[in-house]
Amino acid sequence: MDQNRVTPKILPSTPSAVNPPLLIGDLLRSSVRMAGENQIVYRDITRLSYRQFEQRVHQLAHLLTEQGVKAGDVVAVLDWDSHRYLECFFAIPMLGAVLHTVNVRLAPEQILYTMEHAEDMFVLTHEDFLAQLEPLAEQLPRVKGYLLCQDHPAPVSTSLNLIGEYETLLAKQPTHYDFPTFDEQAVATLFYTTGTTGNPKGVFFTHRQLVLHTLAEANIFQTPGFELLNRNKVYMPITPMFHVHAWGVPYTATFMGATQVYPGRYEPEMLVKLLVSEKVDVSHCVPTLLNMVVSAEPIASGKIKLDGWHVLIGGSALPQGLAKKAHLLGIDTRTAYGMSETCPLLTAAVLPKDLAESDFDTQLPWRCKTGLPVPLVDLQLVDEEGQLVPADGETVGEIRVRAPWLTQAYYKEQERSEELWRDGWLHTGDVAVQDERGFIQIRDRIKDVIKTGGEWVSSLEIENLISQCEGVAEVAVVGVADARWGERPAALVVASTPDHPPCLDQLRASLLKAVEGGRINKWAIPEQIELVDAIPKTSVGKLNKKLIREQLKAADPAAS
Amino acid sequence: MDQNRVTPKILPSTPSAVNPPLLIGDLLRSSVRMAGENQIVYRDITRLSYRQFEQRVHQLAHLLTEQGVKAGDVVAVLDWDSHRYLECFFAIPMLGAVLHTVNVRLAPEQILYTMEHAEDMFVLTHEDFLAQLEPLAEQLPRVKGYLLCQDHPAPVSTSLNLIGEYETLLAKQPTHYDFPTFDEQAVATLFYTTGTTGNPKGVFFTHRQLVLHTLAEANIFQTPGFELLNRNKVYMPITPMFHVHAWGVPYTATFMGATQVYPGRYEPEMLVKLLVSEKVDVSHCVPTLLNMVVSAEPIASGKIKLDGWHVLIGGSALPQGLAKKAHLLGIDTRTAYGMSETCPLLTAAVLPKDLAESDFDTQLPWRCKTGLPVPLVDLQLVDEEGQLVPADGETVGEIRVRAPWLTQAYYKEQERSEELWRDGWLHTGDVAVQDERGFIQIRDRIKDVIKTGGEWVSSLEIENLISQCEGVAEVAVVGVADARWGERPAALVVASTPDHPPCLDQLRASLLKAVEGGRINKWAIPEQIELVDAIPKTSVGKLNKKLIREQLKAADPAAS
Repeated sequence: MDQNRVTPKILPSTPSAVNPPLLIGDLLRSSVRMAGENQIVYRDITRLSYRQFEQRVHQLAHLLTEQGVKAGDVVAVLDWDSHRYLECFFAIPMLGAVLHTVNVRLAPEQILYTMEHAEDMFVLTHEDFLAQLEPLAEQLPRVKGYLLCQDHPAPVSTSLNLIGEYETLLAKQPTHYDFPTFDEQAVATLFYTTGTTGNPKGVFFTHRQLVLHTLAEANIFQTPGFELLNRNKVYMPITPMFHVHAWGVPYTATFMGATQVYPGRYEPEMLVKLLVSEKVDVSHCVPTLLNMVVSAEPIASGKIKLDGWHVLIGGSALPQGLAKKAHLLGIDTRTAYGMSETCPLLTAAVLPKDLAESDFDTQLPWRCKTGLPVPLVDLQLVDEEGQLVPADGETVGEIRVRAPWLTQAYYKEQERSEELWRDGWLHTGDVAVQDERGFIQIRDRIKDVIKTGGEWVSSLEIENLISQCEGVAEVAVVGVADARWGERPAALVVASTPDHPPCLDQLRASLLKAVEGGRINKWAIPEQIELVDAIPKTSVGKLNKKLIREQLKAADPAAS
Repeated sequence: MDQNRVTPKILPSTPSAVNPPLLIGDLLRSSVRMAGENQIVYRDITRLSYRQFEQRVHQLAHLLTEQGVKAGDVVAVLDWDSHRYLECFFAIPMLGAVLHTVNVRLAPEQILYTMEHAEDMFVLTHEDFLAQLEPLAEQLPRVKGYLLCQDHPAPVSTSLNLIGEYETLLAKQPTHYDFPTFDEQAVATLFYTTGTTGNPKGVFFTHRQLVLHTLAEANIFQTPGFELLNRNKVYMPITPMFHVHAWGVPYTATFMGATQVYPGRYEPEMLVKLLVSEKVDVSHCVPTLLNMVVSAEPIASGKIKLDGWHVLIGGSALPQGLAKKAHLLGIDTRTAYGMSETCPLLTAAVLPKDLAESDFDTQLPWRCKTGLPVPLVDLQLVDEEGQLVPADGETVGEIRVRAPWLTQAYYKEQERSEELWRDGWLHTGDVAVQDERGFIQIRDRIKDVIKTGGEWVSSLEIENLISQCEGVAEVAVVGVADARWGERPAALVVASTPDHPPCLDQLRASLLKAVEGGRINKWAIPEQIELVDAIPKTSVGKLNKKLIREQLKAADPAAS
């Protein structure tokens, strides 16, 4: 970075000039002007215009100020996806305070750890989480009060220091708050990411980072060859808002002035009801969730039609089999890639002009790739010595990135922060190849790469192939220890219809075809394939490869 | 700004973390990835892919470095709109140097003034300007060398210190330059704006400002209700690149990866030829230029069809008569507003959802309004005491703005800089009203407002009405001194067909109808209306109201 130091011309501003910082409030002001009558919907309960929404953001700011929340304070939110949560996305950072989006799927001791570590001083919580919070409250002496979120206000009995109910208190506040301006490097949001080992790690994002991420995401979402979201579309998240700000899309959708639908707790009936009744155009979720939706009987059978629905897939690779299954139901899939540490957007599978004009089968492999780096992202694939690997579609390297929206540290974790940012690049821990068109394709997490007989085997590639075999609903491939080869791939498979499980010999036969076609080498065919009812997942719906390895080991007769 | 000081949380980065600055080079890198095969075309001479264009930017950087250009240096460009100019838009700022876009339409002594004031140390010039530069060279001792731009390389004879010809020297350079990174507040561009009095004033823009302007412009251009430009469209400027970076659109088009056509010197035959042969979708120009195009015989008669062409209008208000005339030829018009000091984009006439779905006649007045402030722009209408005026569609106020891309001073002009930025707002000098939907409508330049009998009359409103009368090609309205009323409006009118000039009595009669309809008051009807062959314009094609006043005074029998 510094090899190439230069001294450009920097000119003074005239004393009275103002160069405004990039602040989250700017994103909202613009959409109210452009789409003030569009709506923000919560389940079948609440329906707000952008103008009303803006007033409520101002009211929430008054309410929090009344409760002693000041710039620099950390405010925790435990809620399902709601209009209230979106109000917190704006009001809390706009005060100069920090929004801590608590992962409500964590175990109580992890929730306690994150709330203590974040130094939360005020908490908004849905009534569903009261029972979880009550035993923790004594160990959270910094928290000055709890604000109750309910869908239908009703008295509750709790030992928490409740200051009242959200809607009731909001209604009493003035509808204009004179928001301050401040440094764009101020922290706006904070949340925790969990690995399979160690304590959760806090990542944080500044106003500047979130504004730039939103501008870039809005551009990508409107680009031909991706075309996901704009002012005239209806958006509903199916990635929780506590998870990397639902990939930043609530900010982007608000910035665009799109109609937004928040589904509350993810209940299959409510999700499908809203998708249909609100005519949702766009959602995002992990592949396993999309798989659940397209496999559900009324959807798979065509009783409920979701054609015209566009789904952005992230979190894990989109198997081609799943993209095709969705396509046959009229559901359009797009993929993007990122991680908690990266805000998250890094790449998107934007189809080049020629492919955008091709038929679905030609597009399929490209739609399922990790994609092209989005604007302002500098992305490299490097080997273990940090040298660039060739973009030949074959040579694997670790993805490392720079962009104006990457977490600049793990909160209060010096050692892990330096490990993440060694050599001045954020190391994603993902290994990938890049083809001659510049498309990235992730092959594995570095720690999930299978090494068999000295060869690297991509678990994702094998999962992709198996996912396309008849009768397969879901599949996970991991490396299991092998005395002779170091590791050997092994697979867990879930049948589409439990009464007619896929034939494992046919499955092996189709993998052999892929060997003959030169797509994989023969070491890549799993010896051990187990039919199971379900595959272990992490709290955010990804394959839990650690547990899968244990399950396969337990099931392997040779290992006992 | 400071009434409301707060202390938000600012957290340290881990030492190895990198938070990249916003630099112009980022805009190019992204488009090469997304649209590397799209083209950049120059007249019927040159055709480059984005990949080739990027290589040439690197080659130009090598060439300039070889000539001693370093970060902080100012490099002047005198060229017609070309791929070379676009290469300068990138290569010069990417080196950390400053691009001075010289207004080649200025008088020689003004060109000299600006080149001296800017402290240009190297010059790229088209051969068309050699004769203008030769007598100035002696008074520009800072200039170390001149690089010649020619459409067809051939020897020239000149007294200038020529280092050679652009294409010939470029071809010798390596195709990869290791560009530096530096502070995003570094100045990237500098150019001069002329008023009717005093020396030209230098305005300058930083990398940060241009990147943010580009991101915002790209969003607006892809927004429903505006939908002007994207990767799949073909763009050709008809506002010179020396004029506020052709409104920033070459940066935005490059960022999007759109196909771009540069027409060189604006020659009617070449412009029309390129519009047709390159299937240009999108251009931008001042209203007078659009009027010239739609009035040209082969276009007005339908011999040459331009249907499907989208034109962004700025610089002056778009008269409804002109928008309608264009519409009847299948040409779509959009308006935006800004000025040299504002980079320029401030507002765009983005149609709200209901209007976007209406017919053209319903849309017409909205299409011709100044529009809604674009994202990140804070715009207010204030009275002479700096108090906000109501958004009632009637009360006029001056437009003052803040945005992250406004010039922070006039270059080396302390007093005029403070005057521009008094009270911490950039004062546009435009007076406008705002309606209940938030749309801004400019009524006049503060200095062009007509005050008659104590009432304010909007010259633009009268121009708008006259422009819609039969037989009127063009019109300008100004206030002329009047002993009794202070000022009275007077008009210059150009006939569509000189042989059948419009009937001035009919014209007055139709204005009387507007009085009866309550649209204007009776003082607004010009007593003096003169038929003329042409209306005086400034060097950028705007009405030259100073000269118009003189012409009307000279023509007025009562004044003699």
